[in-house]
Amino acid sequence: MLTYDINNRGESTIYEYLYGCIKADIMEGRLAANEKLPSKRTLAKNLGVSVTSIENAYDQLGLEGFIRAEAGKGFFVNEIGKTEAPEEPEPLHDKSLAEIEDRHKEFIIDFKANRTSIENFPFTVWAKLVRNLLSDRNEEILGTIPYNGLKALRVALAKHLYMYRGMEVDPRQIIIGAGTEYLYSRLLQMFGQNTVIAIEDPGYKKFSEISSSQGILWDYIPIDREGMRLDMLQDSLANVIHVSPANHFPTGTVMPINRRLDLLNWAYQKPDRYIIEDDYDSELRYAGSLIPPMFAMDSRNKVIYINTFSKSIVPSLRISYMVLPPYLMELYRDTLSFYSCTVSSFEQMTLAHFISEGYFDRHINRMKRISKAKRDEVLNALMASPLSNISEIMEANAGTHFLLHVDTRLSDRSIKKRASEHHIELAMLSDYMSRPSLKS
Amino acid sequence: MLTYDINNRGESTIYEYLYGCIKADIMEGRLAANEKLPSKRTLAKNLGVSVTSIENAYDQLGLEGFIRAEAGKGFFVNEIGKTEAPEEPEPLHDKSLAEIEDRHKEFIIDFKANRTSIENFPFTVWAKLVRNLLSDRNEEILGTIPYNGLKALRVALAKHLYMYRGMEVDPRQIIIGAGTEYLYSRLLQMFGQNTVIAIEDPGYKKFSEISSSQGILWDYIPIDREGMRLDMLQDSLANVIHVSPANHFPTGTVMPINRRLDLLNWAYQKPDRYIIEDDYDSELRYAGSLIPPMFAMDSRNKVIYINTFSKSIVPSLRISYMVLPPYLMELYRDTLSFYSCTVSSFEQMTLAHFISEGYFDRHINRMKRISKAKRDEVLNALMASPLSNISEIMEANAGTHFLLHVDTRLSDRSIKKRASEHHIELAMLSDYMSRPSLKS
Repeated sequence: MLTYDINNRGESTIYEYLYGCIKADIMEGRLAANEKLPSKRTLAKNLGVSVTSIENAYDQLGLEGFIRAEAGKGFFVNEIGKTEAPEEPEPLHDKSLAEIEDRHKEFIIDFKANRTSIENFPFTVWAKLVRNLLSDRNEEILGTIPYNGLKALRVALAKHLYMYRGMEVDPRQIIIGAGTEYLYSRLLQMFGQNTVIAIEDPGYKKFSEISSSQGILWDYIPIDREGMRLDMLQDSLANVIHVSPANHFPTGTVMPINRRLDLLNWAYQKPDRYIIEDDYDSELRYAGSLIPPMFAMDSRNKVIYINTFSKSIVPSLRISYMVLPPYLMELYRDTLSFYSCTVSSFEQMTLAHFISEGYFDRHINRMKRISKAKRDEVLNALMASPLSNISEIMEANAGTHFLLHVDTRLSDRSIKKRASEHHIELAMLSDYMSRPSLKS
Repeated sequence: MLTYDINNRGESTIYEYLYGCIKADIMEGRLAANEKLPSKRTLAKNLGVSVTSIENAYDQLGLEGFIRAEAGKGFFVNEIGKTEAPEEPEPLHDKSLAEIEDRHKEFIIDFKANRTSIENFPFTVWAKLVRNLLSDRNEEILGTIPYNGLKALRVALAKHLYMYRGMEVDPRQIIIGAGTEYLYSRLLQMFGQNTVIAIEDPGYKKFSEISSSQGILWDYIPIDREGMRLDMLQDSLANVIHVSPANHFPTGTVMPINRRLDLLNWAYQKPDRYIIEDDYDSELRYAGSLIPPMFAMDSRNKVIYINTFSKSIVPSLRISYMVLPPYLMELYRDTLSFYSCTVSSFEQMTLAHFISEGYFDRHINRMKRISKAKRDEVLNALMASPLSNISEIMEANAGTHFLLHVDTRLSDRSIKKRASEHHIELAMLSDYMSRPSLKS
């Protein structure tokens, strides 16, 4: 007869405790296969508990296949298999996994950081919009999100793009996604395995990692002062190019009109050629008008426009979007719309209000002032320092970064190391190049 | 001499207006290539505007490559290429894209809907937690999110899994992602192109679509009353299986202990075999204890546990997570950690508080009561109707759904159509099977 000390059960209910005890007895062989269990009534009486408790425990054991009921005969232990040579679970390799958490070393000045400081995020307005949203109990945010994002946000974006980027876009051409990398992944899936991607060198290296991880071939194409070199592009097998014409990453140059037309003409020559236009921080240029995007110049469904709120609001919000020309939008819908939208409806709706009620516009203007003041302070400090004798500042109007050309025999690596010793983090141009220069 | 009517500029600034006019004149050939432009001073005087306005317009035109400055000579129009045979942009194919917006037909009763009603979402608590988060101005939510999610949420999840699922998990083994589909995509990338996936039939068909779209082979394996058939699995080339042992989708059956052990032993036989355990709504079972997951039984790094808050809180929040055994976690980190986390830090932190302050637990208990009451009402109505004579209810404790077996000669398609005419949406078991039964 089974005897368990009910008083030992701690915080468990009686039935949970009995379920656990009997299960352990079966798994460890103290109850043999096909052994008959006491009747519910007998066991209840013996343990001084209710029949219901025994019934619940037997039900759960039956549901999980540890025991079976035979009609008119009672309950029997099932024959339970074993896993072959069970081993102790492998311990976590503490040292290697520890790196994951500790990778983010703290610097006094981090010129590479992709983050927003507390004074920059519009906490008050955002809090107000979220409060309104939740107190409205808007049913729309609880329903299924269309695969390409909430209509309210797409409508707000279409208006914004018309006003600020001169783009005439139907909200149905927009796809919202959790970050630019996510949208790239889907695009690459849509283009398929025969695609070869051309990536600017120096340029956005992560795009090459994403391509590789999806088994898609890619090629680095060197840039000259105007952008991706057409001759090198024509010599490569690439059929899809990734460019940021308004603000080349990381040099900050603007692609002039003629190179844009050259690239469009390149795309027009073959049906499977496309241009991915990454407009990642065009809103934040300090000087002059915003540069009109290639998307607005394209007459043949060849340009995919992609942008993010990582730079303009905060990276940790994880909201990006892309605009597809009609033909590609239909292709996307037909092949990939079974993937659910990856951005929370709560934040999509908050962002929709943020844009349509004019807060985004004001926020951008404020950010431009703040970043420009910060940049000026850094430039003034550089100019007042001995560094000014051997260095030149390039593309300082690019938005959120500038290039400093230093005339030195030190290698990139050793400059970086010395800065790091003073708790300053630097990004070198060579970090973004396919072949580091001889110096590094 | 250029003459533009400054009073026609509408809401543009003077420099924006002039920039636009000159650009249009160049693009449309009214200003010829290599034509000399008036000096800034002359043009300013002529138009009655400031020299700065002209300077800004010329700067912007120069930046974009429309004009050039020649030292000591002045400004000249550049020779601008053309795109070949520019065409009118293709109009949106209104009819086909319109479907995107209108797909969600309204039903009086939708038995298929994956949504939460307003009374179920914990608006008040969620609003309080978001308010606290935003008024704290916590810097953590503005920084870079670790690739596998905010530590605060992973710690809360590890505790939750220990308490409610008997899983001993290090927070470093957890990866947060924007939806289960997103996490599947990453897993498939990690397993690579030589993988063959086994999917239960009937089962979670979307997994086959995801696999196909990533170029990964898959095979449907029929289930019997205990789950995936081992003989059929052994005959297939599959090396990774997808199962939901606590609550098979869509039949709601629980996989008994012996089938679990069989599948584990299958996985232990070859180094490249793995089990993906989808525990998608285990929290919401009505009867009995929660079923312990296979992850907790695995001693050899073979089971990947995956779960979501879509069922337990709301689908539109887009937060799922997976727990990898240590070996696979290291593999993921080494190969895929360059992908940024896809879930907003704001919502990760809100959810972390929701779990760690005990609200999630209370919410689940409330949801179970509500869903059970709803289910009972539906079952009672069914039993009181003539349908009760020809039908049987199966697996009604599964959580958020049950099966109704109806003895009829009508095909699935015609039952569905008739229900739809009465504005009732039904999901048929055959919708989830590889080969619809002869009836449909």
